[in-house]
Amino acid sequence: MLDSSTARLRSRHVVVAPGMCSGGSLLFGRIGDWTWDTVADACRMKVHSARTPDGDPAYLSFYYFRVRGGRTIHPHGLTFGDELRVSSRAFQLGSRSVMTLHRLAPADLELDDVPLDPVEVYERRHPDCLYAENFNRWIARTSASSNKSLAQVCPADFAYADLPRLPNKYSPRALVGRARTADSFHPAGPPGFVEADPPFTVEYTLDVVRDLNGAGLMYFASYFSIFDTALLRLWRSLGRTDEQFLRRKVTDQEIGYFGNADPGAVFTIAVRRWRSTKRPGTEIADMAMHEADTGRLIAVTGVEIETGP
Amino acid sequence: MLDSSTARLRSRHVVVAPGMCSGGSLLFGRIGDWTWDTVADACRMKVHSARTPDGDPAYLSFYYFRVRGGRTIHPHGLTFGDELRVSSRAFQLGSRSVMTLHRLAPADLELDDVPLDPVEVYERRHPDCLYAENFNRWIARTSASSNKSLAQVCPADFAYADLPRLPNKYSPRALVGRARTADSFHPAGPPGFVEADPPFTVEYTLDVVRDLNGAGLMYFASYFSIFDTALLRLWRSLGRTDEQFLRRKVTDQEIGYFGNADPGAVFTIAVRRWRSTKRPGTEIADMAMHEADTGRLIAVTGVEIETGP
Repeated sequence: MLDSSTARLRSRHVVVAPGMCSGGSLLFGRIGDWTWDTVADACRMKVHSARTPDGDPAYLSFYYFRVRGGRTIHPHGLTFGDELRVSSRAFQLGSRSVMTLHRLAPADLELDDVPLDPVEVYERRHPDCLYAENFNRWIARTSASSNKSLAQVCPADFAYADLPRLPNKYSPRALVGRARTADSFHPAGPPGFVEADPPFTVEYTLDVVRDLNGAGLMYFASYFSIFDTALLRLWRSLGRTDEQFLRRKVTDQEIGYFGNADPGAVFTIAVRRWRSTKRPGTEIADMAMHEADTGRLIAVTGVEIETGP
Repeated sequence: MLDSSTARLRSRHVVVAPGMCSGGSLLFGRIGDWTWDTVADACRMKVHSARTPDGDPAYLSFYYFRVRGGRTIHPHGLTFGDELRVSSRAFQLGSRSVMTLHRLAPADLELDDVPLDPVEVYERRHPDCLYAENFNRWIARTSASSNKSLAQVCPADFAYADLPRLPNKYSPRALVGRARTADSFHPAGPPGFVEADPPFTVEYTLDVVRDLNGAGLMYFASYFSIFDTALLRLWRSLGRTDEQFLRRKVTDQEIGYFGNADPGAVFTIAVRRWRSTKRPGTEIADMAMHEADTGRLIAVTGVEIETGP
């Protein structure tokens, strides 16, 4: 919710409500809403009802979403009543995209009330906090009847020039480009990990009840749920229980969004799993989702998990 | 999100964000969050972290949720950037429960800025607005390891005595009790409608990725998605398309929540469908969800839909 009286605050006190925590994707959805709020505020524009120069709807779509869980705050570990201090800041990343960083800290953690510094996010993360990076690009449909061909656009009122610059060394462009080319964030396997299983493949049909957003496009937060559905099937094939799955701790997850799809789409999700050679119980899963009938790449994720007891 | 600076406002301006609109249940989840915010504010208590007198977590659970869509604002008809004026008010309904009413109006609709009046919600609804009624009861788990036996409780600091009273004629207690006994909001069929199909049954397995909330209980908003999943299967059996389903307009939906369940639960959902004899394209679906292996009643819904072209 964008509330006009609070949008200009650079950090806010948040009481965790049922609609923003779960074993699923609600927290990612809420972080995404904060990204839109942050960009709306920083660029002084109506992000939620943006238009192309031709007057068609333009969407600030999620191209890359990374979230790193901390010791205290991690994606599936929040419950009702937890109190957070959420700090958010948008950065320049070209003329048709924007980078937004978030820190979710326990409300009682002593932190300086200064604008969020990229150096902290990329190099000096507080071990208790959750950090999120959202790399968004402006897109529009090129055909009103399909989600398959989306084009990059630029709303006329996207005033990015005054945003602070993200230091080039932190730009995720190159790593996202490599993941898109290689269908993986870890094409050679993550260092210090060994492959745990033979490749595993899951078929998934787009869920028209749950996977579409208010613009009729596949909802970025649903990609988290779809990948979790594939991972759960792998875990079950290993004899792991639903309860173990629900206790998993996600310490790092990144998703590259490379395609969208229409109702009726069927996807093939290839899952690879690696085990840490040094930290027992730490695993990385790497998944690539393609549209089954066309082979189009839809999304790639890498997720590091502490599996727990 | 409960933002301390805005919670005391009786109505608020809301810009619709991706996390609160869809063909699915995000809007219902958000309305539920507003209910908790409204009760927290009206009773000056920490609803989100409430405790039983024994110190165990107490949850302001949803027992009955009704939403009536208007001409302009209806549950699956919102999109990014729509601007709303949301008015909310909590009412006394016994010592261990509470009734919260909401009106979602187009932001540019001329309305008096007065507290929401139950007479408007029940008898003089504005045709453009969406109205919601949330009847919540305080509950707690009686066993830490199961969601199956929940008991009514009362947090010591639930200060309901100062809430305005809901006129008795509007109390939903009797109708919810009848639905629970009859497994239906329309046991004799709705007046002016004829049954359209033979009874239809759907099996559904609890989705641990999507159906649980941050307290590990089945999330009230997921019940909307589960019933929609059953309804979609019925529609497909009639030869209707996903696109038709996505265009449906829900004018009235009520859910009675009578049970919760654990991971691994399998449900049987019985669906009945009636057609209006006077308004072509208007249908009512009535669904009852039972746990398959025990026969326990989990929930009942009635939903009135304009099917559209």
